[in-house]
Amino acid sequence: ANKKLLILAGDGIGPEVMRQVERVLDWYAKRRAVSFGVNHGLVGGCSYDKHGTPLTDETMGEAMEADAVLLGAVGGPKWDSLPFEKKPERGLLRLRKDMELFANLRPAIVFGPLADASSLKRELVDGLDIMIVRELTGGVYFGKPRGIETLPDGTRRGINTQVYTTPEIQRVARVAFDLARLRGRKVCSVEKANVMESGVLWREEVQKLHDADYKDVELSHMYADNCAMQLVRQPKQFDVIVTDNLFGDLLSDCAAMLTGSLGMLPSASLGAADARGRRRALYEPVHGSAPDIAGKDLANPLATILSLAMMLRYSFALGADADLLEKAVSNALGAGIRTGDIMTPGATKVSTAGMGDAVLKELDKL
Amino acid sequence: ANKKLLILAGDGIGPEVMRQVERVLDWYAKRRAVSFGVNHGLVGGCSYDKHGTPLTDETMGEAMEADAVLLGAVGGPKWDSLPFEKKPERGLLRLRKDMELFANLRPAIVFGPLADASSLKRELVDGLDIMIVRELTGGVYFGKPRGIETLPDGTRRGINTQVYTTPEIQRVARVAFDLARLRGRKVCSVEKANVMESGVLWREEVQKLHDADYKDVELSHMYADNCAMQLVRQPKQFDVIVTDNLFGDLLSDCAAMLTGSLGMLPSASLGAADARGRRRALYEPVHGSAPDIAGKDLANPLATILSLAMMLRYSFALGADADLLEKAVSNALGAGIRTGDIMTPGATKVSTAGMGDAVLKELDKL
Ligand SMILES: CC(C)[C@H](C(=O)O)[C@@H](O)C(=O)O
Ligand SMILES: CC(C)[C@H](C(=O)O)[C@@H](O)C(=O)O
Repeated sequence: ANKKLLILAGDGIGPEVMRQVERVLDWYAKRRAVSFGVNHGLVGGCSYDKHGTPLTDETMGEAMEADAVLLGAVGGPKWDSLPFEKKPERGLLRLRKDMELFANLRPAIVFGPLADASSLKRELVDGLDIMIVRELTGGVYFGKPRGIETLPDGTRRGINTQVYTTPEIQRVARVAFDLARLRGRKVCSVEKANVMESGVLWREEVQKLHDADYKDVELSHMYADNCAMQLVRQPKQFDVIVTDNLFGDLLSDCAAMLTGSLGMLPSASLGAADARGRRRALYEPVHGSAPDIAGKDLANPLATILSLAMMLRYSFALGADADLLEKAVSNALGAGIRTGDIMTPGATKVSTAGMGDAVLKELDKL
Repeated sequence: ANKKLLILAGDGIGPEVMRQVERVLDWYAKRRAVSFGVNHGLVGGCSYDKHGTPLTDETMGEAMEADAVLLGAVGGPKWDSLPFEKKPERGLLRLRKDMELFANLRPAIVFGPLADASSLKRELVDGLDIMIVRELTGGVYFGKPRGIETLPDGTRRGINTQVYTTPEIQRVARVAFDLARLRGRKVCSVEKANVMESGVLWREEVQKLHDADYKDVELSHMYADNCAMQLVRQPKQFDVIVTDNLFGDLLSDCAAMLTGSLGMLPSASLGAADARGRRRALYEPVHGSAPDIAGKDLANPLATILSLAMMLRYSFALGADADLLEKAVSNALGAGIRTGDIMTPGATKVSTAGMGDAVLKELDKL
């Protein structure tokens, strides 16, 4: 196998949802002759427990060499009181930064059979299909100076820095415009240009790129607070949203929750193409490590399985295979198979492994 | 009159909603012997148009002298391309900063007769009553260094700085704990301590204050992205939320929109008490200047009228008078009177002035 995959199952429900993904990978190897050389590694709290760090240099090195990384989830209350640099999340953030995964694609999609699971009235979300493109290696997540200092009088001061440059803004905006061309040809760029100079720059650079290269795409600008409101009010007004790291964190989670099925949502984090045309990439579900249900065979593996579909499409140009997997997931839902988090009246409740079975069964039928 | 009020109607629908507030003030002077010495001033785009600045030093001075400031709204597309320092919003931000209005109180309340106006299913929001306490004079809104610089290669870099200190965090947390004691005795403190050191400091300082002075209040901590999700999923889980300036901007707007009646929501921004025990304060509706309907007598004046009620309560300890006004608003809604934004089937649609009439009529009956 010349396609190298690194699987980092992580903490909480990470390992059990990833087990179902591995079953799907086996299916592809046997039935579609799509096979990967798979390595496994640790990230997050489990890595800290074993190695004293949320990500070892060795695992980081393997991620750099892999054609794609599949990640489960990191974090949990067990590690909440660790010092900042040891926290599970630092492992994930280092992966993003060192692999230069600057574009985080977060679809917010409502699956027909699950439309009633949304907190929102059905007509507002039925058929919803938004793509949020979040900048992932810049902004306040990584800006310096940062830290906590103790002042002479014993009180303290905490500092973080929001920084964006022209190339950082334009490369992620380019991803958004390119995606929009494959969809509804509409991009909404989101910042707080009325309050932050970094937002003024963001707005101007996105506009410039649009005017130079993407005049066929409709571009609008919106303040982040208004965007949070509009997502709740009328989410279907959006096609592609592009925004910075921090706003993207909140807005994509808000949009994800609007769908009512957080357990269904995948994400892709893409880097720049290297000389060989290879683009580093990491795929992970939007949901977290859900420590409360970890190890109980209750978690929904579909977000991670759909992340695998994104991987097939974006990292390996296996669009037909991605379609197949998405179809199998949709058929399993159509057949009334549900984990607890997406349970609907009259449906059949299954375990994590049971959902894996259902997807494999549907794959066999396709 | 020894109570000095400064009215800054601002831009867009600001002047027309403020006109209804002035009618309510007249009613209080005549019928309740509650009277104010009222001054008027300009802020935002209208001030820029007249004076070339969104807030003159003179008006700023009047605000410092006033016992309370009532503000309509600022901003609009007309001024969108002004340089950063001239933007209408800078006027509002200067008022907040110079008056040291560090605690912004934003109730998210669902009014019974309007519960169906929410995008959320009725059972999720009926009876909702959250108080968001947003820090308003610190964080990335005011932190330095800030600005846009051009690099040697012609590309640019935009910078903003998030800064918080122990006293800044503790004074706003104190407001939240004190308010919680008058309500459900629950505070949820929101930051991104998993990513930002300023969030780590925030969490630690809030916890310290709690352990020292507010053990009778239940304190929890939540990451901002999770809070955005939880607001959509199950908003009634919250009582008081306390958070920083930027997260508060997004989360309070999200919470406001959940209620489905943005046109109904007031806010109070409070400063520290001075030597005389007087606390600077500014009251404004949560909604913006709505330029699309400005001057058409369509806007809902209730958010601004309810901001006046908050003023009576917080600045002048006129709790009974505040109750009276809130009751009148609620009775007007109960009588089926609606502006367009909150129109419900079978109700009576009225203009801005018509809603003012309805409130005055209900006041007369009380
Ligand atoms: C775990 C955390 C560091 C991360 C983030 O804030 O980016 C998560 O919330 C996400 O959105 O992937
Ligand atoms: C107008 C703008 C500067 C302001 C803010 O961002 O604080 C507004 O959105 C608000 O929430 O009061």
